[in-house]
Amino acid sequence: MDEKLKIGIVGLGTVGQGVVKVLSKFDDIEIVAVAVKNLTKKRDVQISNLTSDIYELVNNPEIDVIVEVAGGLGVYEYLRTAILNKKHIVTANKELLARYGSELFDLARQNNVVIMYEAAVAGGIPIIYPIKTSLSANSFVGVAGILNGTTNYILTKMEEENLSYEDCLLKAQQLGYAETDPVGDVEGYDAMYKIAILSNIVFNKRIDLSKIYHEGITNISSLDLKLADEFGYKIKLVAMAKKMSDLSGNDCLDIRVHPVLVSKDESLADIKNATNAVKLKGFPVGEVMFVGAGAGEFPTTSSVVGDILTIKSEISKQDKVLPMTVCHHTDYANQIHIDDTQNCYYLRINASNTPGTIGKIGLACGKFNINLSCILQKGVNEDRSATIIVITEECFERDINNMIKEFEETSEVRVLNRIRVM
Amino acid sequence: MDEKLKIGIVGLGTVGQGVVKVLSKFDDIEIVAVAVKNLTKKRDVQISNLTSDIYELVNNPEIDVIVEVAGGLGVYEYLRTAILNKKHIVTANKELLARYGSELFDLARQNNVVIMYEAAVAGGIPIIYPIKTSLSANSFVGVAGILNGTTNYILTKMEEENLSYEDCLLKAQQLGYAETDPVGDVEGYDAMYKIAILSNIVFNKRIDLSKIYHEGITNISSLDLKLADEFGYKIKLVAMAKKMSDLSGNDCLDIRVHPVLVSKDESLADIKNATNAVKLKGFPVGEVMFVGAGAGEFPTTSSVVGDILTIKSEISKQDKVLPMTVCHHTDYANQIHIDDTQNCYYLRINASNTPGTIGKIGLACGKFNINLSCILQKGVNEDRSATIIVITEECFERDINNMIKEFEETSEVRVLNRIRVM
Repeated sequence: MDEKLKIGIVGLGTVGQGVVKVLSKFDDIEIVAVAVKNLTKKRDVQISNLTSDIYELVNNPEIDVIVEVAGGLGVYEYLRTAILNKKHIVTANKELLARYGSELFDLARQNNVVIMYEAAVAGGIPIIYPIKTSLSANSFVGVAGILNGTTNYILTKMEEENLSYEDCLLKAQQLGYAETDPVGDVEGYDAMYKIAILSNIVFNKRIDLSKIYHEGITNISSLDLKLADEFGYKIKLVAMAKKMSDLSGNDCLDIRVHPVLVSKDESLADIKNATNAVKLKGFPVGEVMFVGAGAGEFPTTSSVVGDILTIKSEISKQDKVLPMTVCHHTDYANQIHIDDTQNCYYLRINASNTPGTIGKIGLACGKFNINLSCILQKGVNEDRSATIIVITEECFERDINNMIKEFEETSEVRVLNRIRVM
Repeated sequence: MDEKLKIGIVGLGTVGQGVVKVLSKFDDIEIVAVAVKNLTKKRDVQISNLTSDIYELVNNPEIDVIVEVAGGLGVYEYLRTAILNKKHIVTANKELLARYGSELFDLARQNNVVIMYEAAVAGGIPIIYPIKTSLSANSFVGVAGILNGTTNYILTKMEEENLSYEDCLLKAQQLGYAETDPVGDVEGYDAMYKIAILSNIVFNKRIDLSKIYHEGITNISSLDLKLADEFGYKIKLVAMAKKMSDLSGNDCLDIRVHPVLVSKDESLADIKNATNAVKLKGFPVGEVMFVGAGAGEFPTTSSVVGDILTIKSEISKQDKVLPMTVCHHTDYANQIHIDDTQNCYYLRINASNTPGTIGKIGLACGKFNINLSCILQKGVNEDRSATIIVITEECFERDINNMIKEFEETSEVRVLNRIRVM
C-alpha cells in the first residue's frame, strides 16, 4: 500500500484530462506517461511525459496499469500487448469490450491481470463492480436501462418543447451532447454496446453483438410523444436484456435496444435529459435502480479513477489478482431473435376515412392473432384521412410485422410508426 | 478459492432464514452452525447444527466469518470476541454500528479482519461497498436518502388515500411493515442510525450519534400533505448529511433526520411506499442515486450474501485483508447543531380571523429576520379562525423557533406544524 501505483494513460481528450486532474489529488498514484495523437495540441492539463507512441507505455516495465480513454477499436493491439506484459487495464471503451471483450478477458485471465471498465457503461454510475460484488448473491432475470444520454436528451426536449427530432438533434449537437455524426447514438449502437457488456456480467454469458436487435430514435415524431402521453406513456430508448425460454423451451436471452412506450408509473419514465438509469431485477434483491450522469468529463472520470483506486487497493497483495473482477464465464448465451419475441405495440396508423376501415384493421388483427388493448381516432384530418392509434396486447413481433406488410399492400391503411410498449 | 468458506450465523429470524435459503445455492459456503434464542421454534429452514450459545460460534476455530442477523445491542460482546478470534464479520445491525462501530472497526483493524455491513443501510441496495470502491475517487459534499421504508409507506398512504397517520400506521403494522412498537421507525431512530453509518463512510469521519438531530412523522397530518401538494411538494422523511462551514468558518457536517417538503421535481419525491433511495453528491461524479427495497427477507439477504461472497472471493489471498473495506479514519466529525442551520420552513398557522393578524405574522417575521416566500389563506374556518400557510426563505432554525415561541405567548396565532423544506 505504501508504494505508488504507476499508470500510463492512453488518450488525453475530455475524459483523459479529467482523469489527470482528479488523480492530482491522489499521492499514491503516479502518471508515468500519457500517449496522445497530437503532441503539440493545447490542453487543460500539463503533462511532462507525453508520447505519440502507445507502445512506449504498454512495453514500459515500470507501468502497472494502462488506463485507456482514447476510444475506438484501434487500441486493441496495444491493450493486447499491455496484457501480455502483465499490466492491468482500466478502460472506458464500450465498443472495444462489446466486440472483443471475450478475447481480452481470456488473455487477461491467462496473464493474471484484470480489466476494469466501470466507465464503459452508464458513465459515473457504479454498476459493473456492484454487480460483481454487493449483488453477487443474485440470479438476475432482467436488466433495462436508459444508457444513452444523447437520445434521452433529444426525446425529452421533443416532448417538453414539442420540437422535431431534427431541431432537438441540432440542439444536442450545439450543447456537445451529440457528435457531428450522430449515428452511433441515434441509431442505438452506443446503447447496444453497453447492454452487451451489462448482459455479459448480469447473466454470466458471452454475448454475440450481431444477434442484438437495435433500432434508433430517428423515426420518433413529437406527435408520437404526444399520443403516447395521452395513453399514459413516455417514449424512451431503452436497452434491455431478459432471461426467457426460446420457442423450443431452452433458456435464452432476449437482448435489444429500441424505443419503447414506458408507462408513466415506471421509474424509467422519470429519467430526463442526459441522465442514465439502470434497473436490475433478480433474486433475492428484487428490483434495484441506479441513476446518474451517463457521460461527461467528470462523471466518467469518477468511474475511471474508482477503478484505478480499486486496483491500487488490491495490487498490494501478493497474488495481485482481484477474484471478483476476473471474468469466469466463457460460454455464449443463446440469444433469441427479435422476430420470436412477444411484445405489446403502439401503432400510429393513417387510414382513409371510408366506411369499414376500422373493420379492416380489426380483421387483419384477428388474422394475425393480435388482440387490441386500446384504439383511438380523434376526428378526421384535412385530407379526409384519419389518424388511428392502436395499442395491442402481447403478440409476436413476426405477426405484427406481417400484418403491417399486408396493410402496405392495400391503399387504405398505412402504419406510419410502430413502437413497442414496455 | 477451492476451499469452502465456513460461516456461523447468529440469528434465524426473517433475514437469517433468507440467508440460509440463498446460501444453499452456493457450494463454496458452508454453514457450520447457527445460534438462535429458541431451539425448538418452527422455522422455514432445516439446520442440523443449531445452538443457543453464541460463544460456540465465535469461539469455534473452524469458522471464518460470523454473520450477525440477530439485531440489537446484545450481540456486541459476542462480535468483539469473534473479532479477537480473527473472524470476519458480516452484519445487518445498524444500531450496533451507529453506536459502537468505532470500537468494532478499531478492533477489526487491529486483528486484520473486516466488518462488512451492506445490509445495514437501505436493505438490498448496494451502497456501502460501491462508495468504498467504484466511487472512491470522489470527495462528497452531501448524501440524502429515504432510508426508512415504514415511514415512507405511511406518508405515501396518507397522501394517496387521504388517511390519518394513525390509520396508515395500523395498515403498515398489519402488512408487517411496522412493528407493534413503532417508535424506532416513526420517530426517526432507524433512519438516524443509517445516516450515521452512511456519513461515516461518505465523509470519512466518525459520527457522534447524540449530535444528530432527529424528528419523526407523528406530527404530519394528511392536511399538511394536501397543502404541501398545492405548493408543488411532497412530504418525506429524509435523512441527510452535508458538508458545510460552522459559524466560526470551520468545516463541519450537518446531519439530521426529519420530515421535509421535497419539490416534486426532485427525484426523492417520486420514491413511494416502502422503497428506499440514496442520493449522493460529490466531485467528480456529480449526482448519483440508488433505489430499491430497503427491507424485507430477500432484499436484505442479497446484501448479506453479497458481503459473504465478497469476503470469500478475497479471503483466498494470503494476507486475508480487503483494503477497501477497512475503516481508515479515526477522527470525529465536527457536527453542527440543528439550531445553527439555515432552512426554508413550511408553517401551518391557525390564527384568529381578526383585522391585523396577517400583519402581526409579518411583523414577527421581520423581527426575526425571516423573509416569506409564499403565504396562503383560503377562506375562514367554521370557528372563525383561519388556516394560514407560510413558506419562508432560508433562515436560522434558532430564529424560526424563537418566533414560534413568541407566537405561543399571544392568543391570536398558533403554529400547528412546522416542516423544513428541502
